[in-house]
Amino acid sequence: MNETRAFAPATVANVSCGFDVFGMALEAPGDEVLARRAEGSLVRIRSVSGDDGRLPLDAKRNTAGVAVRVFLDAIGSRQGVELELYKRMPLGSGMGSSAASAVAALVAVNRLLGDPLSRSELLPFAMEGERSACGSAHADNVAPALLGGFVLIRSYRPLDVIKLPVAMPLFCGLAHPHIEIRTRDARALLPDCVPMADAVGQWGNTAGLVAALCTGDYGLLFRSVQDLVAEPLRKNLIPHFAEAREAALAAGCEAFGISGSGPSLFMLARDRAAAAAGAAVVAALYAKLEVGCDYWDSRVNMEGAQVLDTESGQAESASGGLNCVLENGARL
Amino acid sequence: MNETRAFAPATVANVSCGFDVFGMALEAPGDEVLARRAEGSLVRIRSVSGDDGRLPLDAKRNTAGVAVRVFLDAIGSRQGVELELYKRMPLGSGMGSSAASAVAALVAVNRLLGDPLSRSELLPFAMEGERSACGSAHADNVAPALLGGFVLIRSYRPLDVIKLPVAMPLFCGLAHPHIEIRTRDARALLPDCVPMADAVGQWGNTAGLVAALCTGDYGLLFRSVQDLVAEPLRKNLIPHFAEAREAALAAGCEAFGISGSGPSLFMLARDRAAAAAGAAVVAALYAKLEVGCDYWDSRVNMEGAQVLDTESGQAESASGGLNCVLENGARL
Repeated sequence: MNETRAFAPATVANVSCGFDVFGMALEAPGDEVLARRAEGSLVRIRSVSGDDGRLPLDAKRNTAGVAVRVFLDAIGSRQGVELELYKRMPLGSGMGSSAASAVAALVAVNRLLGDPLSRSELLPFAMEGERSACGSAHADNVAPALLGGFVLIRSYRPLDVIKLPVAMPLFCGLAHPHIEIRTRDARALLPDCVPMADAVGQWGNTAGLVAALCTGDYGLLFRSVQDLVAEPLRKNLIPHFAEAREAALAAGCEAFGISGSGPSLFMLARDRAAAAAGAAVVAALYAKLEVGCDYWDSRVNMEGAQVLDTESGQAESASGGLNCVLENGARL
Repeated sequence: MNETRAFAPATVANVSCGFDVFGMALEAPGDEVLARRAEGSLVRIRSVSGDDGRLPLDAKRNTAGVAVRVFLDAIGSRQGVELELYKRMPLGSGMGSSAASAVAALVAVNRLLGDPLSRSELLPFAMEGERSACGSAHADNVAPALLGGFVLIRSYRPLDVIKLPVAMPLFCGLAHPHIEIRTRDARALLPDCVPMADAVGQWGNTAGLVAALCTGDYGLLFRSVQDLVAEPLRKNLIPHFAEAREAALAAGCEAFGISGSGPSLFMLARDRAAAAAGAAVVAALYAKLEVGCDYWDSRVNMEGAQVLDTESGQAESASGGLNCVLENGARL
């Protein structure tokens, strides 16, 4: 095989109550990466499209290039690789754009080499891509992009990533108002210390959300998607947050929050029509306020990244391991 | 029916990571209450045994009397009731002694009156018993004592109590070293504010524990039973905590922590023999140090409180509602 192509989806990190521990994969949008064997031993970014020229072509500074480099080094491969990135989602939107690029690149290159590693084993390299993109090797976007579904990052030391059961159909609307929020500004808003009552409420909600997903209890799920810690501060970075929330709920969505560190907004619903209606009314609200806003609706994507058959264009499901436990790099 | 008898079990609140949100019921020990119809409309405590004379006979100051009084008032009953309390567990031990008395009394009196309320509906009155016993109407002992199993108190306003699935056999050892810790002293040790990193770790653990219970994943369960918030401070109130932990783990238990606010210590195991061995070695350790120590082993009790047939002495399972949602008193 001389070239292969992979897709990795957008992801919603945090999901309100699970700040820094939950992430959820969508079906769309997402990035595609084509990987090709090349002479020599370098990783090169041949082209990036869909980024308005904002992403570096220097592989050492590009999240996909960094992830593939550390992967090849870890498995002791001297294979040269050329990557073409097709960005199909907005950058800096809180939808896991850098994660999707790194994951799609890793899945493509892993396949190119005959899948020497499992999906779970690719995770630490995707996290290195995140470190290069935003300074911290967080997993709450890369893990769901790679493994699919609703993922819990229980711990980083050691890395303990659990793909949660999702016992019911679950749909997500996503709206991306064209507002710039830098992750580091959103992080800077967070307090160093959480008042005990809020911390207790938050761990009640994370526990409730997992119980709801495992038992298929929509009511409990929607009651549990409440953020007592980050959202009360971060929503101030997003104009018209309260009206957007109200509009989405009125359209039939039953939970609403900030995707990652924003500005994208996610909403959860029992059916696709409600998710689509919620995302559309939020976009319409911003349009009325002369703020551009893209929007999507999607079922929660239980498969995660996919290898795309370059011959037929058919996708191959590529679901990762359940309840994988990885010491960072320890199994390599 | 002129008299009836009920049993309510000891409970482990917090279960390490779920400070103020988790509680778990044991099979033994537990309290029994005999309730008898009486002339007039008063609630009276006729006798208390097993308390070394420490509990008040004044029904207005006794947790069982208080719980039954607010229950009768709420349902508009003028029935007089006489209670006999048989304490079969230590007071002030962190094993939910006051909760067991209040719950056994409520279940007995509810049956005496022909079960006008469901198990879930009794919860707010048991919480009033807790308020009289320790100043706060907490539910993390009364809810599992009443409903059985492993219970999540997701929220107090509104009250949202979820009985979690427990997909595997789970056993608990319990040791009660004869050390006095007052709940208010244990509470006073807690910080007002939790460092963000610890808060994130704690909600990762509560989420992990629920996922483990739902999927029957022992490894994840035992990894998740870690308290980053209360135990690091409270363990200093319990001499030889570290040695006790080490002994229990060496005996085959796989998780260890403080039951409620202590001094009782709980340990979790995959089988009864390991739970029993763990509890016994902890008791032996304290005995060597000339500290008395009672101990028990038990399967996690999925049934909760039980009405005891006063004719045959047979217990009747009395499992409560799943995923009950109660506004405090709102359904009455």
